[in-house]
Amino acid sequence: MNSVVIIGSGNVAQHLIKAVEKAPDLDLVQVFSRSHSGLKHLVPQEKITSNYEELKDATIYLICVSDNAIPSVSYALPFQGKLVAHTSGSVTLQEMSTQNRRAVLYPLQTFSKQKELDFTKVPLCLESEYETDYEILEKIASALSHTVYKIDSTQRQALHVAAVFVCNFVNHLYKIGNDICDEYDIPFAILRPLIMETASKITVLSPNEAQTGPAKRNDTTTINKHLNGLTKPNQKELYKILTKSIIDDVEKL
Amino acid sequence: MNSVVIIGSGNVAQHLIKAVEKAPDLDLVQVFSRSHSGLKHLVPQEKITSNYEELKDATIYLICVSDNAIPSVSYALPFQGKLVAHTSGSVTLQEMSTQNRRAVLYPLQTFSKQKELDFTKVPLCLESEYETDYEILEKIASALSHTVYKIDSTQRQALHVAAVFVCNFVNHLYKIGNDICDEYDIPFAILRPLIMETASKITVLSPNEAQTGPAKRNDTTTINKHLNGLTKPNQKELYKILTKSIIDDVEKL
Repeated sequence: MNSVVIIGSGNVAQHLIKAVEKAPDLDLVQVFSRSHSGLKHLVPQEKITSNYEELKDATIYLICVSDNAIPSVSYALPFQGKLVAHTSGSVTLQEMSTQNRRAVLYPLQTFSKQKELDFTKVPLCLESEYETDYEILEKIASALSHTVYKIDSTQRQALHVAAVFVCNFVNHLYKIGNDICDEYDIPFAILRPLIMETASKITVLSPNEAQTGPAKRNDTTTINKHLNGLTKPNQKELYKILTKSIIDDVEKL
Repeated sequence: MNSVVIIGSGNVAQHLIKAVEKAPDLDLVQVFSRSHSGLKHLVPQEKITSNYEELKDATIYLICVSDNAIPSVSYALPFQGKLVAHTSGSVTLQEMSTQNRRAVLYPLQTFSKQKELDFTKVPLCLESEYETDYEILEKIASALSHTVYKIDSTQRQALHVAAVFVCNFVNHLYKIGNDICDEYDIPFAILRPLIMETASKITVLSPNEAQTGPAKRNDTTTINKHLNGLTKPNQKELYKILTKSIIDDVEKL
């Protein structure tokens, strides 16, 4: 059985701890965390350490700390030649210390402590420094999730930007929808079925096929009506530039 | 039992025809359509007419034609004093002819012929010229959907703009995610679980609480890395302006 040590106690670390504990083929050996208190509900006290020197032997060490702390954590590990993977979308493999066999296991999902999530459905993006490690990495990843992809550092960084567009920026557009509803005393709940259907549509159609609306039809009457109705400058600006981007796309076809 | 005549044969008309036929408390009397061929699979030939003079008596006439054709269709109806509702998000009640009792039944959803959809979950936004008609309208709408809202013309137009943000613009961001994936030989399917989770998150959290990512954290290192990595000018511009809008929001709190 493959054994796992998790380094970190944040959002990703906590979701990974739960996923490793659920996986019948994986053994959670230890968790490294500066503070024990935040993990009490997830891991027995004796499995938590805050001392690098006490780290036990394991098949893989998963670094789940903030992006800028990944290099220093990789240098702080007191052993050599072991399989060490970070879990970030934007850090390259090369930014980690060469003292261990470097790898990446990047879960492409938005995690929040308040919302449970089925980890077996999270796509895992894998990369390894050595070809021979890829097999081990894939075995461990497949024990955690049903979808596993081989993704190199360049692809992963592109993917991270794509994720910002389809997750962070999309959520900001939800926020603007919410702001408009608030302004006109409309319950935001009214938009939820539309939001879910828009997301679910692209499991059947490509985003290009699924595109609808006044910009797609270049319906300038409706576009101008909308622009005149918007009261906030940032909403007006976003409306203009997103409309232009859709129209430009249509013209390219 | 309330009887319904549907005028139109497009996307919304077809989804409404199916919904009325499924509703045990509603009777689909007739469909008005210029061409019979497009509706053959949905309605028996004898229920379709292309002649306004042949329109039968019904509790409600639902106009499901393109926005700019709504006024002329409302003027073309050869009868007076009947309940006539259009189904558009962006046309006011006042734009219809006064010869009939005017109303609106706006289904707030994105419809496509290629994707089936549970109409009972589509929010219906209702408005009526006369208070006494609202009850009939509400009864008919409740036979079609579980969620019914009273929404006036001003609110409906705001809602239509909000829908452009959370549906049309969101889909365009999916398209950009798809473009980035194509550029780096990554299957777009890898982003689908993230897209679904981002949408599903706001059933539990407000968009404001759900916001994550480099802009929210004002993480300029990652933001600049992303901007340097983007090769298309429209992607760069959208990245900048959406990031700025998120940062401005955070500063307002």
